Amino acid sequence: MPQATPELLSNILYQVRPLIGKGKVANYIPALACIPNDKLGIAIYTNDGEVIKAGDADEAFSIQSISKALSLTLAMQLYQPEEIWSRVGKEPSGQAFNSMIQLEVEQGIPRNPFINAGAIVVADMLQTRLAAPRQRLLDFTRKLCGDTDIVYDKVVAFSEMQHSDRNAAIAYLMRSFGNFDNEVIPVLNNYFHACALKMSCVDLAKTFSYLANKGQSVQTGKQIIQPNQTKRLNALLATCGLYDGAGEFAFRVGMPGKSGVGGGIVAVIPGEMSIAVWSPELDKSGNSLAGTAALEMLSNQLGRSIF
Amino acid sequence: MPQATPELLSNILYQVRPLIGKGKVANYIPALACIPNDKLGIAIYTNDGEVIKAGDADEAFSIQSISKALSLTLAMQLYQPEEIWSRVGKEPSGQAFNSMIQLEVEQGIPRNPFINAGAIVVADMLQTRLAAPRQRLLDFTRKLCGDTDIVYDKVVAFSEMQHSDRNAAIAYLMRSFGNFDNEVIPVLNNYFHACALKMSCVDLAKTFSYLANKGQSVQTGKQIIQPNQTKRLNALLATCGLYDGAGEFAFRVGMPGKSGVGGGIVAVIPGEMSIAVWSPELDKSGNSLAGTAALEMLSNQLGRSIF
Amino acid sequence: MPQATPELLSNILYQVRPLIGKGKVANYIPALACIPNDKLGIAIYTNDGEVIKAGDADEAFSIQSISKALSLTLAMQLYQPEEIWSRVGKEPSGQAFNSMIQLEVEQGIPRNPFINAGAIVVADMLQTRLAAPRQRLLDFTRKLCGDTDIVYDKVVAFSEMQHSDRNAAIAYLMRSFGNFDNEVIPVLNNYFHACALKMSCVDLAKTFSYLANKGQSVQTGKQIIQPNQTKRLNALLATCGLYDGAGEFAFRVGMPGKSGVGGGIVAVIPGEMSIAVWSPELDKSGNSLAGTAALEMLSNQLGRSIF
Amino acid sequence: MPQATPELLSNILYQVRPLIGKGKVANYIPALACIPNDKLGIAIYTNDGEVIKAGDADEAFSIQSISKALSLTLAMQLYQPEEIWSRVGKEPSGQAFNSMIQLEVEQGIPRNPFINAGAIVVADMLQTRLAAPRQRLLDFTRKLCGDTDIVYDKVVAFSEMQHSDRNAAIAYLMRSFGNFDNEVIPVLNNYFHACALKMSCVDLAKTFSYLANKGQSVQTGKQIIQPNQTKRLNALLATCGLYDGAGEFAFRVGMPGKSGVGGGIVAVIPGEMSIAVWSPELDKSGNSLAGTAALEMLSNQLGRSIF
Repeated sequence: MPQATPELLSNILYQVRPLIGKGKVANYIPALACIPNDKLGIAIYTNDGEVIKAGDADEAFSIQSISKALSLTLAMQLYQPEEIWSRVGKEPSGQAFNSMIQLEVEQGIPRNPFINAGAIVVADMLQTRLAAPRQRLLDFTRKLCGDTDIVYDKVVAFSEMQHSDRNAAIAYLMRSFGNFDNEVIPVLNNYFHACALKMSCVDLAKTFSYLANKGQSVQTGKQIIQPNQTKRLNALLATCGLYDGAGEFAFRVGMPGKSGVGGGIVAVIPGEMSIAVWSPELDKSGNSLAGTAALEMLSNQLGRSIF
Repeated sequence: MPQATPELLSNILYQVRPLIGKGKVANYIPALACIPNDKLGIAIYTNDGEVIKAGDADEAFSIQSISKALSLTLAMQLYQPEEIWSRVGKEPSGQAFNSMIQLEVEQGIPRNPFINAGAIVVADMLQTRLAAPRQRLLDFTRKLCGDTDIVYDKVVAFSEMQHSDRNAAIAYLMRSFGNFDNEVIPVLNNYFHACALKMSCVDLAKTFSYLANKGQSVQTGKQIIQPNQTKRLNALLATCGLYDGAGEFAFRVGMPGKSGVGGGIVAVIPGEMSIAVWSPELDKSGNSLAGTAALEMLSNQLGRSIF
Repeated sequence: MPQATPELLSNILYQVRPLIGKGKVANYIPALACIPNDKLGIAIYTNDGEVIKAGDADEAFSIQSISKALSLTLAMQLYQPEEIWSRVGKEPSGQAFNSMIQLEVEQGIPRNPFINAGAIVVADMLQTRLAAPRQRLLDFTRKLCGDTDIVYDKVVAFSEMQHSDRNAAIAYLMRSFGNFDNEVIPVLNNYFHACALKMSCVDLAKTFSYLANKGQSVQTGKQIIQPNQTKRLNALLATCGLYDGAGEFAFRVGMPGKSGVGGGIVAVIPGEMSIAVWSPELDKSGNSLAGTAALEMLSNQLGRSIF
Repeated sequence: MPQATPELLSNILYQVRPLIGKGKVANYIPALACIPNDKLGIAIYTNDGEVIKAGDADEAFSIQSISKALSLTLAMQLYQPEEIWSRVGKEPSGQAFNSMIQLEVEQGIPRNPFINAGAIVVADMLQTRLAAPRQRLLDFTRKLCGDTDIVYDKVVAFSEMQHSDRNAAIAYLMRSFGNFDNEVIPVLNNYFHACALKMSCVDLAKTFSYLANKGQSVQTGKQIIQPNQTKRLNALLATCGLYDGAGEFAFRVGMPGKSGVGGGIVAVIPGEMSIAVWSPELDKSGNSLAGTAALEMLSNQLGRSIF
């Protein structure tokens, strides 16, 4: 079976580079719109602790919705399963990531923790149990990654707050159904800070190593969540992690994953490795266009997927 | 790592049997409503060709929607990928299996081949390219299973046709959007016959062995579909195979699978085995209640899943 | 108060004629698409029996959905109110005329008798109680109009049947909910024949005179429906008669009315007159563009409306 | 034709009183839930300036959504038509009064000014053009009514603000679409104060006399809005004024009207009279159960309606 090498990764980046120009950089906030569209990086972190990388793998970018997997992991440490899963579902939404239609029909219970509504519920849960949730998430991420220099991008976080009306509407709707416990604005502020984490592909691959290793961080050796929790989190990522492109991503790539509108995608092959890619241009579902193609090619060339 | 044995399977059935009485047998047609609710069986077919079974594993039942995976496999043999995936999507629907709402909004293109609308499109495709699609699907199934005694249950098929109005509405709606090429009634008749296939757990585990073996049937040794097609079919089963309970099934069981309202579920662990369970009572999503629990227990006890 | 005269009507047509070219002739069937777009006519029939007309007021055209008011009137003669209003609602739909979404959510009960689903239920009711519903509706219309030469346009009716998939889907969906009693195809055939009635503006104004005269036909002197039924039918026309442009029509014109995609509109001022206009080009809601403008101008110039 | 007299009104109240006990008093805020369910009053204000009344016609109650007609009238004085109707539609919604589904699909433009979203847009418009919108609306109402003692019920207004999450969600959603210009909370506070106006049936009948008199207040003799604006406002009330029971109300009563969850309904017969009824128990659409019945009976006994 072929092995991942820097050459193989470089070759993959070379092959997907022509896709640049065919997608669209997120432009709803200026801080994202100004990112050069030709950034392209990939990093693998194996369960043996080896880093393999190519392209702009060390350059930090806005991880955006990838943070939803971190927040949920933190919540899984703080709450019993039934406390979480009574407030947020486990099913694909079949709708756009910020749709309120389903949320109204289903009386304020978001379909899953990776659409905006679900992640906002998770942020509300962190607010309830943590004294300083924003700092705590940052510390948690820094430890997982083994890099104390990771920071929130304040410009991005502020810019998101300036465009927060839709998410405020989502939070208030959930509150009207009794599924939101704190003040709306501070929770949204923390939520947007989480989205504004700046991390590189190498950072992300290291940070999420626990998903490929039955819940134990390869980086720190610590058990972050239990093996059974890890299986479940991977299952959620596989069915709900790529907005309404989850089916297409499973079909082409075949790995649990989580994307962000900053152009990053994290994916894992359980038992083997965690992977992160970055290319800012997005497809119509809001997932990195070249990033998805790179992961598909990697899956095919390594002959590896969960299926 | 623990091995699957008849004792382990018997023990699992013993543990899930108390769930009987807590679900609901499908009752929209009399032929299904009269099945004793205490039937309970499980069979594993390993990639080494070994059968391990327990309970009512040799008793034939109506496979219902499990047939949708067979029909799609046959269509994948007859059509180019772009011919199929331009007429039916690859995403979870987030809606009930027979909903027409999404179908209208999305202009006659069903979300995936495992909701009714999608399976009816597949039946329409088989009708177009095959001289005798009904007989061909039967022959195909018999060969995959290695059992020439498999039959359509005529009473079930006829009974389904008597209650076909909703599916006729779905077919006519797709035809109004130009996504249905043949006469509605004959296609529905074939579709209902496929649902009326009578097979046992052992039959099903053998029949679907190709999904666990990169497309090659363990039973016959023949390559049914290519490895890459198999990966994709498993991905579709993982995200869309369990109606609107796909997320929950992935979360608890962690295997690609397909259920039917007859109470059967087929699931696979790629590279290792195919599994079939049967218990007629269904949960609120229409999946076998005790069957899902048995698969979850099996996954936990074997320490095996795709995640 | 100003009186309606041929000169006033001619002047109105002169003023609205510049709108021709700004709408769109219905083109879903060839028989409608080929109608010259510059036809323009108006006719008033007063409760004194006087005809006032201008333009192409004597040229017959396809009345299309205007027939839904005739079919409902006939059903009101044949059925008790509770028999009708348990099978079809009285509320505006807020959706397109052929939407199935609401019909699924509301379990096969159409919102009102003037959307397609509702008119198909009415056609089903006529089928149940009449030996020859198609001939009976024709006779009924001829008598109301006082013109035995009125016919069904066979080319239009046949052409509609060739494009009947959407309406078949609607009928089958209602049948799946138990709200359709006869075979689908014959009922649709009658429904399409009713839509294919050919009548002129003068014919229509005479035919619907009973709506302006407490249920008594000015033309025949016969009581067609009771005064209270007439009030109710006018109320339904005011809230639901103009597809999803009913609010706009009430706002601008202020009369109960019914439109058809052939470009005709019938409207009434209770106690005074019935009016018919014809101009084939439609606005985005499917109502005659110049026809609506003519009625608005007539309302303003006469100082008459129900509000 | 029979005339309205106190005896006729008393008799109507006597006949509808048995409906008390069959509806449900609004209970989403305590201040409404505690109103005795057996209150029952009716008042007519004729275009000759005569008051005819019966029952609890002089007791003030919370007018709730009836205030939406007052706010809109005030906005019609302050804004050009195109300024208003580009921000809010004129069509029945076909949905519940506080639904966000349509609002999302139609990108933040509410269907009409009488659903919550539409009234909140109107409140936003008043906020923009008035220095003290809350005081101004109170003054406007007092003048229309000729009673300077009319007040806002502070307990009701405060209680509404405590339960404002759903309306905040609606406002934020509109703001995310650019259809809301001011801060959310102050606008909602004014909106809830308008809903908390306390007025009696006699007050309401007098206040809305301009709707029955081509825009000229019978009470003050002043032209409040132009005749053509009055026609249009009445049209909106007829198609959209009774939540999703507008069709049923037109069918049974046949008058333009506006209801509130406090159990009040205002209705008008243009050219003749304005009418107000009050009975706190509501039907399933949220309209006064006995109030609607009283208006239906009045329409039948007077032989008067717009149809």
